[in-house]
Amino acid sequence: MKYSDEDILNLKKEPYVDLDFAKVDIHRKVRQGVSEVIYGAGKTKEQILEIAKTLIEKGNETILITRMCEEAKDYVVKNLEIENVLYEPQAKICVLGTIPKATGHGVIVVVTGGTSDIPVAEEAAITAMALGNDVRRIYDVGVAGIHRLFHHLDELMTASVIIAVAGMEGALPSVVGGLVSCPVIAVPTSVGYGASFQGLSALLSMLNSCASGVSVVNIDNGFGAGYQASLINHVSGGI
Amino acid sequence: MKYSDEDILNLKKEPYVDLDFAKVDIHRKVRQGVSEVIYGAGKTKEQILEIAKTLIEKGNETILITRMCEEAKDYVVKNLEIENVLYEPQAKICVLGTIPKATGHGVIVVVTGGTSDIPVAEEAAITAMALGNDVRRIYDVGVAGIHRLFHHLDELMTASVIIAVAGMEGALPSVVGGLVSCPVIAVPTSVGYGASFQGLSALLSMLNSCASGVSVVNIDNGFGAGYQASLINHVSGGI
Amino acid sequence: MKYSDEDILNLKKEPYVDLDFAKVDIHRKVRQGVSEVIYGAGKTKEQILEIAKTLIEKGNETILITRMCEEAKDYVVKNLEIENVLYEPQAKICVLGTIPKATGHGVIVVVTGGTSDIPVAEEAAITAMALGNDVRRIYDVGVAGIHRLFHHLDELMTASVIIAVAGMEGALPSVVGGLVSCPVIAVPTSVGYGASFQGLSALLSMLNSCASGVSVVNIDNGFGAGYQASLINHVSGGI
Amino acid sequence: MKYSDEDILNLKKEPYVDLDFAKVDIHRKVRQGVSEVIYGAGKTKEQILEIAKTLIEKGNETILITRMCEEAKDYVVKNLEIENVLYEPQAKICVLGTIPKATGHGVIVVVTGGTSDIPVAEEAAITAMALGNDVRRIYDVGVAGIHRLFHHLDELMTASVIIAVAGMEGALPSVVGGLVSCPVIAVPTSVGYGASFQGLSALLSMLNSCASGVSVVNIDNGFGAGYQASLINHVSGGI
Amino acid sequence: MKYSDEDILNLKKEPYVDLDFAKVDIHRKVRQGVSEVIYGAGKTKEQILEIAKTLIEKGNETILITRMCEEAKDYVVKNLEIENVLYEPQAKICVLGTIPKATGHGVIVVVTGGTSDIPVAEEAAITAMALGNDVRRIYDVGVAGIHRLFHHLDELMTASVIIAVAGMEGALPSVVGGLVSCPVIAVPTSVGYGASFQGLSALLSMLNSCASGVSVVNIDNGFGAGYQASLINHVSGGI
Amino acid sequence: MKYSDEDILNLKKEPYVDLDFAKVDIHRKVRQGVSEVIYGAGKTKEQILEIAKTLIEKGNETILITRMCEEAKDYVVKNLEIENVLYEPQAKICVLGTIPKATGHGVIVVVTGGTSDIPVAEEAAITAMALGNDVRRIYDVGVAGIHRLFHHLDELMTASVIIAVAGMEGALPSVVGGLVSCPVIAVPTSVGYGASFQGLSALLSMLNSCASGVSVVNIDNGFGAGYQASLINHVSGGI
Amino acid sequence: MKYSDEDILNLKKEPYVDLDFAKVDIHRKVRQGVSEVIYGAGKTKEQILEIAKTLIEKGNETILITRMCEEAKDYVVKNLEIENVLYEPQAKICVLGTIPKATGHGVIVVVTGGTSDIPVAEEAAITAMALGNDVRRIYDVGVAGIHRLFHHLDELMTASVIIAVAGMEGALPSVVGGLVSCPVIAVPTSVGYGASFQGLSALLSMLNSCASGVSVVNIDNGFGAGYQASLINHVSGGI
Amino acid sequence: MKYSDEDILNLKKEPYVDLDFAKVDIHRKVRQGVSEVIYGAGKTKEQILEIAKTLIEKGNETILITRMCEEAKDYVVKNLEIENVLYEPQAKICVLGTIPKATGHGVIVVVTGGTSDIPVAEEAAITAMALGNDVRRIYDVGVAGIHRLFHHLDELMTASVIIAVAGMEGALPSVVGGLVSCPVIAVPTSVGYGASFQGLSALLSMLNSCASGVSVVNIDNGFGAGYQASLINHVSGGI
Repeated sequence: MKYSDEDILNLKKEPYVDLDFAKVDIHRKVRQGVSEVIYGAGKTKEQILEIAKTLIEKGNETILITRMCEEAKDYVVKNLEIENVLYEPQAKICVLGTIPKATGHGVIVVVTGGTSDIPVAEEAAITAMALGNDVRRIYDVGVAGIHRLFHHLDELMTASVIIAVAGMEGALPSVVGGLVSCPVIAVPTSVGYGASFQGLSALLSMLNSCASGVSVVNIDNGFGAGYQASLINHVSGGI
Repeated sequence: MKYSDEDILNLKKEPYVDLDFAKVDIHRKVRQGVSEVIYGAGKTKEQILEIAKTLIEKGNETILITRMCEEAKDYVVKNLEIENVLYEPQAKICVLGTIPKATGHGVIVVVTGGTSDIPVAEEAAITAMALGNDVRRIYDVGVAGIHRLFHHLDELMTASVIIAVAGMEGALPSVVGGLVSCPVIAVPTSVGYGASFQGLSALLSMLNSCASGVSVVNIDNGFGAGYQASLINHVSGGI
Repeated sequence: MKYSDEDILNLKKEPYVDLDFAKVDIHRKVRQGVSEVIYGAGKTKEQILEIAKTLIEKGNETILITRMCEEAKDYVVKNLEIENVLYEPQAKICVLGTIPKATGHGVIVVVTGGTSDIPVAEEAAITAMALGNDVRRIYDVGVAGIHRLFHHLDELMTASVIIAVAGMEGALPSVVGGLVSCPVIAVPTSVGYGASFQGLSALLSMLNSCASGVSVVNIDNGFGAGYQASLINHVSGGI
Repeated sequence: MKYSDEDILNLKKEPYVDLDFAKVDIHRKVRQGVSEVIYGAGKTKEQILEIAKTLIEKGNETILITRMCEEAKDYVVKNLEIENVLYEPQAKICVLGTIPKATGHGVIVVVTGGTSDIPVAEEAAITAMALGNDVRRIYDVGVAGIHRLFHHLDELMTASVIIAVAGMEGALPSVVGGLVSCPVIAVPTSVGYGASFQGLSALLSMLNSCASGVSVVNIDNGFGAGYQASLINHVSGGI
Repeated sequence: MKYSDEDILNLKKEPYVDLDFAKVDIHRKVRQGVSEVIYGAGKTKEQILEIAKTLIEKGNETILITRMCEEAKDYVVKNLEIENVLYEPQAKICVLGTIPKATGHGVIVVVTGGTSDIPVAEEAAITAMALGNDVRRIYDVGVAGIHRLFHHLDELMTASVIIAVAGMEGALPSVVGGLVSCPVIAVPTSVGYGASFQGLSALLSMLNSCASGVSVVNIDNGFGAGYQASLINHVSGGI
Repeated sequence: MKYSDEDILNLKKEPYVDLDFAKVDIHRKVRQGVSEVIYGAGKTKEQILEIAKTLIEKGNETILITRMCEEAKDYVVKNLEIENVLYEPQAKICVLGTIPKATGHGVIVVVTGGTSDIPVAEEAAITAMALGNDVRRIYDVGVAGIHRLFHHLDELMTASVIIAVAGMEGALPSVVGGLVSCPVIAVPTSVGYGASFQGLSALLSMLNSCASGVSVVNIDNGFGAGYQASLINHVSGGI
Repeated sequence: MKYSDEDILNLKKEPYVDLDFAKVDIHRKVRQGVSEVIYGAGKTKEQILEIAKTLIEKGNETILITRMCEEAKDYVVKNLEIENVLYEPQAKICVLGTIPKATGHGVIVVVTGGTSDIPVAEEAAITAMALGNDVRRIYDVGVAGIHRLFHHLDELMTASVIIAVAGMEGALPSVVGGLVSCPVIAVPTSVGYGASFQGLSALLSMLNSCASGVSVVNIDNGFGAGYQASLINHVSGGI
Repeated sequence: MKYSDEDILNLKKEPYVDLDFAKVDIHRKVRQGVSEVIYGAGKTKEQILEIAKTLIEKGNETILITRMCEEAKDYVVKNLEIENVLYEPQAKICVLGTIPKATGHGVIVVVTGGTSDIPVAEEAAITAMALGNDVRRIYDVGVAGIHRLFHHLDELMTASVIIAVAGMEGALPSVVGGLVSCPVIAVPTSVGYGASFQGLSALLSMLNSCASGVSVVNIDNGFGAGYQASLINHVSGGI
């Protein structure tokens, strides 16, 4: 692919629709290969609706909305009269339109340390699905009962990417990273209390992982992990 | 690939050579697809030599040693009488043996914000090369003079993975991540002073990146970024 | 201007009106060239009203009240029977009286990284307007989609001062600071989650900006940025 | 001034000289109105020399080098055979070439809380001088002996910009900010011990200043304050 | 005064009344010269009542209860049928019984930086009054308008102890400490936002005060300051 | 055991030898069942010698000295003319006199995550030996190569207490704690770099362990872990 | 006890019941000697009920549920129709089934610094009781009135393990640790305000205890302390 | 005492001698009742000498110099040819001239937790002596061996002020504060390692003291404590 000077000028000319409160990117599918994602937190239901409408008008078939409360979801869905809607209330994530067919090199496996990490894991899993990936979930396999993790060794070792979600001491990605030969995306969660400091403990653990092949996203950022995992699962040699 | 119960028992039976002070992993090439890496920091030159010898005896052709001072390098090289040695003094990284032919999906691009970030970038670049990747370096293209980055847009947009290395405010990965459609591994460096708090500022920036597709490794962890980038560049669908 | 010993004594003699709970500064317009600002947070509506009345009695024509909830605004406006009132509910900022004609060297441009940064940006913009400045708003032009920022290059490059408002990784002021030749006031916002630590991440980024010409105010301190920008836009050679 | 699409392309075409380890910006004087500054920390004397040579070849008459040790200064000066050299050893700042005639709206006043803050203050003062400003120094006037500050009230009140440098509790900018009607740039220093946490205490104080009109730069960042003050002192209406 | 071995044994024998949930100290008046204080936070109204009853039965004439909500106050007062009650709702502090006549060396002066610091200041003032001190209040005299403080120079310079209460940058105690020759007790408050980090900024400022003669208590700890000031105002040579 | 009032008086009468700079506890063997330990850090070799002499004169047969540099060790040993001396230079720990015969319920097992953790582990191991315990060392069995740990499952599962020493992400105690049914004492080490923040990362991990039965000591506090493990291994029902 | 390869395979074969949202460990009693504990925080009442049912079906006679609100308790108890239920509302801890007979070496003593620490202490005490221990409570004996602690010297000195619970400055474990010869488990609580930083102050104090024999668990982790104390009280020689 | 407007003008007229690098306060003895103190850290020996000379010329008989290295002391003493010199090398504190006769209400007692805290304690003790106070030292009486503290109960209980110096967990001031009825000034020291975080642990402990009557100065600030204690010991009723 060649990125010419004209491309830059084009980027400058009409790369987005200006909604006053937001500049909606409608070239991103071309530029980055995926649809626009609406980050719902801090936006009113009216704002979300207006952005979604703009994206649909410009031809997007799948729209991912993260961190949207149930009330906003109902409002948006009602006003769009759209058919296919996936909404996971714990993760507050929504997919408008059809989930695309899975492409990519292989399967993305999402593991969690505990039950309380599931909402973040679901944000990651549904993001990856909405971006066209096969996803496999393995939940509540934290290191304090490591035999539960070993029970799933085959699935772990055949993944193309693993998303490891854990709070408290955040040790799961290190153990997983030492067992497999694929990239591991670590997601610290704010699960815990006291010296977990809202996920700081897990975050630091993961950044200091003694296992190679582990990189980290923000606390509770299931979306970021799912997005990154999808990019990895679709990695190619450029042109 | 099938991971049978017998495999687990085998793992337990003889997976390493016990050197008292270290348990050298000699199955890892099989298990994880790469050679053992020796983390040189906190090890004496005698310890590094002994581990390197063990790995060579077990048939490893390329050994990567990170964070090894020049004196230790001289000692190890002299006592091993090995022919091919690559040593980069700023990054304190060493490759014993032949650099493998580049495989993988495409090119790994390493970018830095400034001149002072180069040692960490070199640790990443040489790690990736030693693990069999094509690597392209673009240095000193920080966001305060963003036209320097734009000059390299073509190379960025055709990379299969990008490693973005920056200290101070750590904004480079966000800008890069917004321009490309491949995974970006962000490496904060301890470059800066005052409120950079030895890399904390850059680390937090990168974790909070508003660009999707960015994940982060530890401060100054060029090795980790190179290793992760190599896994991504070789990602496959498992078996 | 000469500041004599008599001036000091005068300062001591009657520089304020003592309302018990507050000492209202009525000489500040003389001393600092601007009207008193009422910081509404932590004051009751009755206290705000009493201070406002005192200021009006002493001849102030424009009173800026920050961080005042809508209920307090209604109470104050009703009891003052004042004609011109500007109230921006998201930013909770209020201007009682006429907005002064714009003076100063040029235009103050306010830019934000995202939609959620707008309330802080509005606090800055309205403060600057109330202090007699031309203000131009450019919102949602964060670094992850840098072409949106470039679309406004002309406006940025002709500003006399720029206020750059951003949360999360806070990279916007660095990129802007590298493009322009006027002073940039950076305002970190508490927008974000997890490792943004309520704005700490953006604050540190901005303090470590690799661009020269950037200085920083407190997290979410739109007022402080607007005030500082106005001083800069009116800077003169003293007397 | 108009910034056309062609300008952007020009920026992309040849905006810098590539020295491998650094990309030296030679258009910045045009783009930002000041010469390139060499940040000496973390660069070898050979690197500094090479960058300085490049800048001189491209026609720069004044080059500011910050954080350069005495040995590097001697090496650079000897190899450039330049006539006018200003070097302040405490601040480790160097000006090669002629100090430009002072322009701008008025006088920049630099104040410090204590004697130990002087090196940072000198970095600010010399930076401002090298960028074409009248500078006035008032040192050791910290708030614990506030009569010393009051002795200089006239100079403070006629400044066009004030740079207030202080360590420990960092209260000086607040007091100064309450007395004057010009912008105050606050510089926290790492002077202190124990709970000063290398300047964090002063930094937080200054960010929380109850005086309006104060903005802050990084700890010990005298250069940044001098640069920002110069921009302010030269502020104009754009175009 | 002699503190014999018998005294120690006596201390061990019956120094308190055991109420299961609390061990009420009834010797403290003897041992420390003041009455028991009930720290109301985290205690139910029933628990407070029971402790108060015990203290009254044992002969205490003045009981100070801090951090007690209005509902608990009403409950306690109703059930004790006590005559003299002082309750300050903002500070949530209550004195049951007669305020003792002021003794001690001189006057305790309580100053605040702003209006929002008044509740903490009142906790300090009423504590000092309940322990037998003359108290003088000077509120809203923060350093950003330092002429307001100077208006009260005479009162400050004749105090025997000063309690200086401030949030945000917490500079007031430094300025006051530089003006007077009596001990200053500094009380940081959690007033502020953003980088005030709930009073941390003010706390650090006060600990790093460049004025001698300043010591510090916990954030918002008006009681502790009042208590310490009373001890100082009553200091004697032991026996 | 009965602790009478006379005991308290006795404690007060002559519980220590006063050396001016130190009050050497000579009753502690009686009171706590172990000999005095000399914490060498921050003491001169002369001070250590004098304390050691005092302890020997009072009849102690085994003296443990921690954090003593080799030079001090040589000085002390030469001047005491003692026969049995154990000194471990990496851990800087010294035992003067005979190592007591192992007593206690069972074996204390010391495990480390890596090679660099060994000095801290040795401090723990030698402390436990000096206090009369059987000690078994298992080093370099960190979670990134968990099969190395599983190789030692039998020894782990038959320990009476386990001391788990790890730096970086500090995950080892959680994994061990999930496998065994004896108490685990976790020791974070300062091994690591960047976001390990000198052991803070490992410390937080261990405090947040999702495995029950894990408690934690200070960073690098091998002595504390060995001491606590010995108390546990000798635990009895009191009298 | 021998842990054979077959054991590992067995562990892998059926070590838990998979409830989708949780993997309930039913071998743990065998493996670790205690029943499963349900950590109630972050689980719905339906999830708790389902896990409890599974455990009862598998033969557990005593189930400990921590951090369960009263409403969930009522729901679980009603649906299980179980006879013996202990619920402590302040500590939100519940024991379903019979409290086992006390075994172990001796008595576990739980001490608190203040009244507000009691809920955490009760979590520790009831946990220890549910695991088969004699427990003795001594509450409100903090170091600011140290005679209250001395009154209980006999009970402290005959304990086999002590759990010391304290907030604020967290000094209690150090004082207790210096008096006794048994292991002390320190539990910091989040009791306090301002610079207690939600228990951080107490946590750091306890980690830095100058008394030997003290180890620490997470802030407010009464359960962890009770569990660890029970393991210690039952410590044996392995096999 | 009356502080007239003329006094303020006088303050402004000639309150100090300007030495360029320092403004030496020569009215402070009048204004604050004590001599100037020279804070030696960060000043050259030549600067210290020049300030000392100025003070002697202006009639000061006792000059206290803190944090001055031995070499500077020798230089200053040699050039001043002064007779009475007290220099304590561990504390790096120096008194030039005669130690004044002790005045004040009573005795200042300085206690330390350990041997390593003595340098800070000596800074406090010598400061207090130089300001005219009787001082009594009690060292190495930390809370882990609390009987050592009790041995000195009489001295503690008859003090007029106590300075309590401690590192690590910093519990000493709380215990002392609970025993006595005089003000306690707490000084945290940077003694410790790991989670002591250079004195932060002790600092937080002391700020959170559950004993009333304790206030705190900066980490290692022996001077500040001695100065404050002297002010307290000389407290009077003003005029």
